[in-house]
Amino acid sequence: MERRGILFIMIDGMGSLPVRDGKTEWEITKTPNLDALAKRGVYGLMNPIGPGITPGSDTSHLNIFGYDPHIYYPGRGPLEALGAGIKLMEGDVAFRANLATVNRNMVVVDRRAGRIESADAARIAKSIERIEIDGLEFTFTHTVEHRGVVVVRGKGITASVGDTDPHEEGREVVQPEITAENERMARAIGKYTIEVYKRLSKHKLNKGRKLPANVVLLRGAGMYREVETFQKRFGMSACCIAGGALYKGIGRYIGMDVINVKGATATFDTDLAAKARAALKCLEKYDFVFLHIKAMDSQGHDGNVEKRIEMIKRIDRMVGMLADTKAVIVVTGDHSTPPTKRMHSFEPVPILISNVEARGYGINKFCEVECAWGELGTINGSAVVPMLLAYAGRTEKYGT
Amino acid sequence: MERRGILFIMIDGMGSLPVRDGKTEWEITKTPNLDALAKRGVYGLMNPIGPGITPGSDTSHLNIFGYDPHIYYPGRGPLEALGAGIKLMEGDVAFRANLATVNRNMVVVDRRAGRIESADAARIAKSIERIEIDGLEFTFTHTVEHRGVVVVRGKGITASVGDTDPHEEGREVVQPEITAENERMARAIGKYTIEVYKRLSKHKLNKGRKLPANVVLLRGAGMYREVETFQKRFGMSACCIAGGALYKGIGRYIGMDVINVKGATATFDTDLAAKARAALKCLEKYDFVFLHIKAMDSQGHDGNVEKRIEMIKRIDRMVGMLADTKAVIVVTGDHSTPPTKRMHSFEPVPILISNVEARGYGINKFCEVECAWGELGTINGSAVVPMLLAYAGRTEKYGT
Repeated sequence: MERRGILFIMIDGMGSLPVRDGKTEWEITKTPNLDALAKRGVYGLMNPIGPGITPGSDTSHLNIFGYDPHIYYPGRGPLEALGAGIKLMEGDVAFRANLATVNRNMVVVDRRAGRIESADAARIAKSIERIEIDGLEFTFTHTVEHRGVVVVRGKGITASVGDTDPHEEGREVVQPEITAENERMARAIGKYTIEVYKRLSKHKLNKGRKLPANVVLLRGAGMYREVETFQKRFGMSACCIAGGALYKGIGRYIGMDVINVKGATATFDTDLAAKARAALKCLEKYDFVFLHIKAMDSQGHDGNVEKRIEMIKRIDRMVGMLADTKAVIVVTGDHSTPPTKRMHSFEPVPILISNVEARGYGINKFCEVECAWGELGTINGSAVVPMLLAYAGRTEKYGT
Repeated sequence: MERRGILFIMIDGMGSLPVRDGKTEWEITKTPNLDALAKRGVYGLMNPIGPGITPGSDTSHLNIFGYDPHIYYPGRGPLEALGAGIKLMEGDVAFRANLATVNRNMVVVDRRAGRIESADAARIAKSIERIEIDGLEFTFTHTVEHRGVVVVRGKGITASVGDTDPHEEGREVVQPEITAENERMARAIGKYTIEVYKRLSKHKLNKGRKLPANVVLLRGAGMYREVETFQKRFGMSACCIAGGALYKGIGRYIGMDVINVKGATATFDTDLAAKARAALKCLEKYDFVFLHIKAMDSQGHDGNVEKRIEMIKRIDRMVGMLADTKAVIVVTGDHSTPPTKRMHSFEPVPILISNVEARGYGINKFCEVECAWGELGTINGSAVVPMLLAYAGRTEKYGT
């Protein structure tokens, strides 16, 4: 059997619940290209991590890509750091970091320093690029607007440390609770926060700002460990096409090459056609192409049904550009983000595997409801890669 | 998200196989209230313990309530003992026990001592309430008719001991096989049987009986160990409404409060309306209400299709009384008991979870066949509580 490539289209937060006349966005939106794919493939529903488990995007991607998050989830910090292009070393602890505004009592006035512009933030960040505290090295890497990543390197550090980010304004920056395990780390973080405040308060770009970027808030500590690469694990070279840093980070974490595509913004205005063209090109070189689309999730969080419907139409057009590939095509999501709930939910998501020889089940519409009746049944995310390997002709018979 | 209560309706032995015109009792009986529940919920089939495993009621309930029976099943004895209201201590070994009739050669003439009446049995049992053998304490507690529970307490005892009950008439009372592990226990049980025979043979109430209750047959040895409570494990206060002792025992074993309801008899004549009223009242106080209905299973063992159909109608009426609760409602069974087989069978049972936000799958009839097409797919019993927690708004996101 010919070994084929795999194109994995991951629609973040795709699953939904009824939003109108008892129907979901997928039920009420015409998707001729996806319906055609489903007709020449197999389909079902998928619990990304398990029944009743509401997935985060990070844990869900790992599980679906064959890395049990209970073993391999490094926390959000390292994934964001990798997504920002930072080279991590074994044992580094990484945090997501915000430039923020505090008053002189260290009470947070604005968690985003007045949504400071990227250019200003980058210049301000220079003054805290590298700070040593008690023998530990703190590196701040600016990404977009107020956002960045802090990496801590040194002996005796740990990721068992709480956020300094109080997660709401009007509250003081948090001094992480000190435990027997984290004492060195927690104390250093306290000192780091003060040192950052001192340096940033003096920064000339902050002088004129009503909401100076005078502190760094940390959250999502995680320790980086190298994991077996996707290629080693499944024998497929792999790349990642994504706008969002987290998804690039997930790709890098499991050893995928990250392909940057102009116009791939991880927002509603992302250039799906550019991503599709990039994916087709990558399929010439890679066995496995992971194409991530973020906006449906964001629109789910915003409760915006109309924009989710519009994204479905755009995704369907993008699928039309891709349908002629010889690769096996997968379309699924990492979790549901029903606009009625405005948050991730545990309800299973549709999954289809197409461009494969398959029995004809007569699906009419690619949606949550009809997918429940498919051959795949309701599967766990961890079953996806093994099935894809089989459909792509990349497995051997077990036994004789 | 609002945290809600859960009403768990367990229909013992609910699943079936075709009994008429290729249809099961559930397919041929009108169940408007259950159908309405299914329409505003999700549904599927459930293998209570696993595919191809024919569950006992005890092991099945444990698995569905989140206690893997391979780890937590204490044997039938302790569950019956707890159901009878006996306070067990860690390390006690409990047996189910029958008052029975033997001849002078210890051959069983009647396993139920002529189905002795409860009042007589209770008086006779007084004479063997507590017997000490070689430092081990044997306590007999009478329950109903010929039935009772024997608890053994003392050092060096074990539940690795066979039944003394030969399980058929015309055979001798069994002397449990002696092994290196159980020698003390097995010998004591042999002596206990003789001592019981001596005491009961002399009992004046036995003088006039054609089938004297002159021996105690033991079966289902199990050692009691305390387990983590359901409340601790899942963060939900819980109660149990059941007529049958076993089900009360299962509830007590996992720390549920047992609510006794007048008219709940675990028989065909049970008062389902009284149970429903009790359940609604319990939902004001408890997070999780386990409502057990026994009769369908008994009628399955008897091969009585008509009575099973009548029970389905009654259950549907009971569901009508319950449908307005704000709680999440679950309806399922612990196994199939097809009247064509007259015993438990491994075929999966229907499950529905209702009063939840759900996609509309257009089910027409709550039955084994249509449930196979539901969003839940064919799940394992162990997936039920995690899903219920999610539907009741009692879970957190895993990851970010």
